[in-house]
Amino acid sequence: MSGPRAVGIDVGGTRIKAVLMTGSGDVLEATVRPTPARPGPELGTIAGELRAELEAATGHSADALAVVVPGLFEDRAGIARWSANLGWRDLALTELLAGSLDIPVASGHDVRAGLLAEHRFGAAREVDDVLFLPLGTGIASAHMTGGVVTAGSPWTGEVGHVVIRPDGRECGCGARGCLEAEASAAALGRIWSEVEGEPRDAEDLAVAVRAGDDRAKGVWSEAVDALALVLSPAVAAAGTRLVLLGGGLALAGDLLADPLHRALSARLPGRSELSVRVAELGDRAGALGAACLALDLLTEVES
Amino acid sequence: MSGPRAVGIDVGGTRIKAVLMTGSGDVLEATVRPTPARPGPELGTIAGELRAELEAATGHSADALAVVVPGLFEDRAGIARWSANLGWRDLALTELLAGSLDIPVASGHDVRAGLLAEHRFGAAREVDDVLFLPLGTGIASAHMTGGVVTAGSPWTGEVGHVVIRPDGRECGCGARGCLEAEASAAALGRIWSEVEGEPRDAEDLAVAVRAGDDRAKGVWSEAVDALALVLSPAVAAAGTRLVLLGGGLALAGDLLADPLHRALSARLPGRSELSVRVAELGDRAGALGAACLALDLLTEVES
Repeated sequence: MSGPRAVGIDVGGTRIKAVLMTGSGDVLEATVRPTPARPGPELGTIAGELRAELEAATGHSADALAVVVPGLFEDRAGIARWSANLGWRDLALTELLAGSLDIPVASGHDVRAGLLAEHRFGAAREVDDVLFLPLGTGIASAHMTGGVVTAGSPWTGEVGHVVIRPDGRECGCGARGCLEAEASAAALGRIWSEVEGEPRDAEDLAVAVRAGDDRAKGVWSEAVDALALVLSPAVAAAGTRLVLLGGGLALAGDLLADPLHRALSARLPGRSELSVRVAELGDRAGALGAACLALDLLTEVES
Repeated sequence: MSGPRAVGIDVGGTRIKAVLMTGSGDVLEATVRPTPARPGPELGTIAGELRAELEAATGHSADALAVVVPGLFEDRAGIARWSANLGWRDLALTELLAGSLDIPVASGHDVRAGLLAEHRFGAAREVDDVLFLPLGTGIASAHMTGGVVTAGSPWTGEVGHVVIRPDGRECGCGARGCLEAEASAAALGRIWSEVEGEPRDAEDLAVAVRAGDDRAKGVWSEAVDALALVLSPAVAAAGTRLVLLGGGLALAGDLLADPLHRALSARLPGRSELSVRVAELGDRAGALGAACLALDLLTEVES
């Protein structure tokens, strides 16, 4: 077992996932714990505990560690600017980790890290121009161009809060008609519950679509149109070749990917090279991507 | 006059513009000639002639040269994949130039080059996350993130052919309702001519809007909405801080920038850091950007 190993940690709204990974992407051990309420500076301690747990379980030490988080994140400074779910503001994450750990550390954005992992080990292995779109409780995106994950302002990837229907459904952010309020897995669960008159989730909706229910097909098709409306300009501007779907809604597979590909093709005439595919690494993409960020620190030091 | 100098050449649909520029952005001399019908391999000869002309006029030699073109361009390979206006397909431009000239050469995309120039010497000097949008006969865009101009597939920046109204106006590309058919300077001229019942251009429309003509204001506001619909997802996905407007329509200044800023803010709630501004380098941005690409070759060789 030679070569470097890294711990990757993905802090989600409800769970913290951690892996100990080798440079070739082999996961030696993985662990999960609940996310504490409004985590902040204790993330340094938690990262140390997860590292110790993974090292003890495998008998292998980690050479680097990185933590990725959702929300508004400033990559170059390593600062978590804001997260509605996690309740922080301007948390200097890389600095915090450096103060708690004696190995090289990094921090990053969960969706951008997930895309990095999908590119190295998952469904985007052979494509360098990718738009990654996890569809879960919320919706965020990440761009890769020419093999590099790009990031501008901390708002990078906040496509879930593009208003597509000014008179649309209320969004958690306070606005109306955001993409997230119209086409996230959570939104589709709510919309289908309204139609059915009892609690339903997005998976129930997908089952009804497959069974040929016309009302379900109508809801599905509106969501696909909403996604295409927001994705088509982003794809055109960035020169995306592959739209990679992740998150809970991507479990619907071709039921989502096929009509979305058709809707995108209709909005992007002539783009025969564009494909739509479902991600492969599931809810582990963020933690694996974090481990990639950590391993890259070691390469940078060497070169 | 120490320091490197480069020739930048911008091949447009009707005119070829060329400059001899210093590393600090000073234009020592500029020249223009008509674009020949369906130019191809003769671009090597033309580049050599323009270089000789600029050198003779200034008494200074050029250390590098680059040519930028519109259409579908593959940056890494230096190949002009396709241009409707110029009639080429898979023209290996960098290779062609290297065969005709005895100095370092490069090639690139006109809009991406224009953004580079606006970032170094123009209206985007202090911003690293920019979406540049020249609005002329056509519409194309370029992204800069973290100070780097990004490019994916050769289709990068083709936002003019995002279909926003499937039952909309016919576009030159054969589709209907493309952004370019609804909101380019050429489209606005056509639409305003229809309303007025006689030949008008986008400048006439802007004059009517300023004069308070309600029909003109309606046409203008529909165009602004169309632009915001396409720009908002691209801005959100890339984390853009500055939308920089170029091309003929940008001559309208605040008449365009202010309502577009309001329309984008309505579609991107909470994004108080986003600004919309008019480009500074006018129709010389492409040639200056080409000169930047050429100068960068010299820096790369040195380092």
